[in-house]
Amino acid sequence: MRVSQLFTRTRKDAPADEVSKNAQLLIRAGYVYKEMAGVYAYLPLGLRVVEKIKQIVREEMEAIRSNELIMAGLQRRDVWEKTGRWSDEVVDIWFKTKLQDGTDLGLGWSHEEPIVEMMQHYAKSYKDLPISLYQFQTKMRNELRAKSGIMRGREFVMKDMYSFHASAEDLDNYYNEAIEAYKRVYDRLGIGDDTYVTFASGGAFTKFSHEFQTICDAGEDVIYIHRGRNIAVNEEVLDEAVKELGVAREEMEAVKTAEVGNIFNFGTQKTDEMDLKVTGENGQQMSLYLGSYGIGVTRLMGVVVEKFSDERGIVWPENIAPFRVYLATIGDTTEVADKLYEELTEKGVEVLYDDRDARPGEKFADCDLLGIPHRVVVSPKLVEQGLFEYKHRTGEAAETLTREALLGRLV
Amino acid sequence: MRVSQLFTRTRKDAPADEVSKNAQLLIRAGYVYKEMAGVYAYLPLGLRVVEKIKQIVREEMEAIRSNELIMAGLQRRDVWEKTGRWSDEVVDIWFKTKLQDGTDLGLGWSHEEPIVEMMQHYAKSYKDLPISLYQFQTKMRNELRAKSGIMRGREFVMKDMYSFHASAEDLDNYYNEAIEAYKRVYDRLGIGDDTYVTFASGGAFTKFSHEFQTICDAGEDVIYIHRGRNIAVNEEVLDEAVKELGVAREEMEAVKTAEVGNIFNFGTQKTDEMDLKVTGENGQQMSLYLGSYGIGVTRLMGVVVEKFSDERGIVWPENIAPFRVYLATIGDTTEVADKLYEELTEKGVEVLYDDRDARPGEKFADCDLLGIPHRVVVSPKLVEQGLFEYKHRTGEAAETLTREALLGRLV
Repeated sequence: MRVSQLFTRTRKDAPADEVSKNAQLLIRAGYVYKEMAGVYAYLPLGLRVVEKIKQIVREEMEAIRSNELIMAGLQRRDVWEKTGRWSDEVVDIWFKTKLQDGTDLGLGWSHEEPIVEMMQHYAKSYKDLPISLYQFQTKMRNELRAKSGIMRGREFVMKDMYSFHASAEDLDNYYNEAIEAYKRVYDRLGIGDDTYVTFASGGAFTKFSHEFQTICDAGEDVIYIHRGRNIAVNEEVLDEAVKELGVAREEMEAVKTAEVGNIFNFGTQKTDEMDLKVTGENGQQMSLYLGSYGIGVTRLMGVVVEKFSDERGIVWPENIAPFRVYLATIGDTTEVADKLYEELTEKGVEVLYDDRDARPGEKFADCDLLGIPHRVVVSPKLVEQGLFEYKHRTGEAAETLTREALLGRLV
Repeated sequence: MRVSQLFTRTRKDAPADEVSKNAQLLIRAGYVYKEMAGVYAYLPLGLRVVEKIKQIVREEMEAIRSNELIMAGLQRRDVWEKTGRWSDEVVDIWFKTKLQDGTDLGLGWSHEEPIVEMMQHYAKSYKDLPISLYQFQTKMRNELRAKSGIMRGREFVMKDMYSFHASAEDLDNYYNEAIEAYKRVYDRLGIGDDTYVTFASGGAFTKFSHEFQTICDAGEDVIYIHRGRNIAVNEEVLDEAVKELGVAREEMEAVKTAEVGNIFNFGTQKTDEMDLKVTGENGQQMSLYLGSYGIGVTRLMGVVVEKFSDERGIVWPENIAPFRVYLATIGDTTEVADKLYEELTEKGVEVLYDDRDARPGEKFADCDLLGIPHRVVVSPKLVEQGLFEYKHRTGEAAETLTREALLGRLV
């Protein structure tokens, strides 16, 4: 893509009303636009990052045999009343609306109830199980405050997955597979080493649920890590967990973290509340076991920006950078740059081509703010010698490379 | 994909409360699930069709230099008040909700106003123009009645595109390019020959807007076609158009149609109302010209089902079928079928592999109901001779083919 075709432009200053680092950087670079507090549009560059994160998540969910679908955002009151979660006193982040005839509707902040309701039409026998389904859904949550940029939006993209099983053991096994799948997602996003499977407050069925918590100064949580035993505990359940797991509290270190995923074992609680049963092996009706697994896609994007940036801008991990290469012309080098752009694009390398008539310093600053991993500069002096300037976003200095060496590094 | 891994199953009867043919067939085949009137979940097979339609639309919008983004569904009241369209008396299909502090919000039924509002932050000079942006957005419309299945949903996927120009002439040129892009979309979906660019009631700026109307018994519109001059007119503007275009009313034929796209030339009306200006060549502030272009993605899916089905089920056009090939085993032919499944999948052919232990008649009926274009049957008798049974969804009879001939036809 050519920079001249982007309608966005970088800006030096963050908007005055935006206090979070992730949104400041993403707005300045032109990835997102703030429509209101906690509600952002994803502009062409930002949408590319979102789609790359989604694709990584998608691959890992497919790898554990989950099938993608998409439920509706509009939700029925009666479906949520079955479990008592329609009430604003129980769930305090509902957005609600009405049909023209006055019928109450909710806007999906989660989808457990609607998916259990739907499953009554499809799961009939124990032979139909296990079933695992996931979606990328735009969730709406009526947060009282929204000051963490895209880390806590009132509207955001979430991958939620639901699995149905005939036995507690089968759910346990799948739950553990899901933990491993989630770890692979964080590894591929470059935050695996800083992300902890963390004991957190459970649902009704298990003492603890599991959160995935990434060390992050901008995070809203505090967890306690026992490095020796590789155990992490959310502070909300610290007392219980210390007792249960037999670790010494004084050996645990408090760190600030951002939650990047959570998984729940609902047992048969929710399916029983909603009366979802299947025919068992012996011909009798049996309860189903439900697991629920969430990853905030746009939240992850925010956490990555919080963790990977410097004074010059964002530093995208290679896997989710909107483009791998920033190709900039200096002076009248369009012919050589055009040729390189076409060659790289043909070979499947994603290039953002800065073809503008602008000062080199402006181009370099934009490249750094945008956080594109590889920068290639085509300058008159080097063109004469058939050479190119190359610099990695995190590298100390630029190098001079031949065409072959450059292609070897980028293709 | 293996049929045994699908959680959906086909059903003989349509749900009693579903009166539209498209939703009846799509529900029976397991493409969609009805959450409430006008609100459907798209199940794994249905989501594949939606994504294929989106990809065709995406390619044609990119071909006319439009860039993809995604705006928010939650919308601000003040943005819509600038043009008078916040009022329920002016726009009667709003869903509205509130923040916890009581602030009114709307749920996006369209995005002209928010995108014009956003553009104030990006379009500064005539040199920034033209700009064309599009999105695939889940629109919410509070329809009084919703009886047309996925052809008129209360929640549905729409591609909307907006273009900004420095002159009326530039907008006109782009508008005409968009008409051609839309025609290519309909051609690729197999409905090009039945789709008419139709004069319809205009916006404030032009006498007529343009709709794309597809001949369809289940459609909600009536248009008048002049076959000799290839002119089509929506009945709502028939009198005006007959006068303006100089055609004889008695030479025009009335047909029932479904609207599959519409485009508007807003001129400078909306941008003026919202005070979006840029610096012109002479240094003075100038108005912007706005075009708006919509295609209902899920609506198109419904129209295709209405048009392409027979008494046995859906007949998907090849380009948007969820899978190209339905591979069914008869008897104990798993080994040969597994091998063919792997080979086709490796070559990039999308195969739905019916590996179930079920009667041949059930498998054939499912294949026909699902509407997969190519059916391949592996039976014990033919396996012995190294042959395969092949039938096209619309073919009269099955043929017997060698492996080579089969691959030649499918790959």
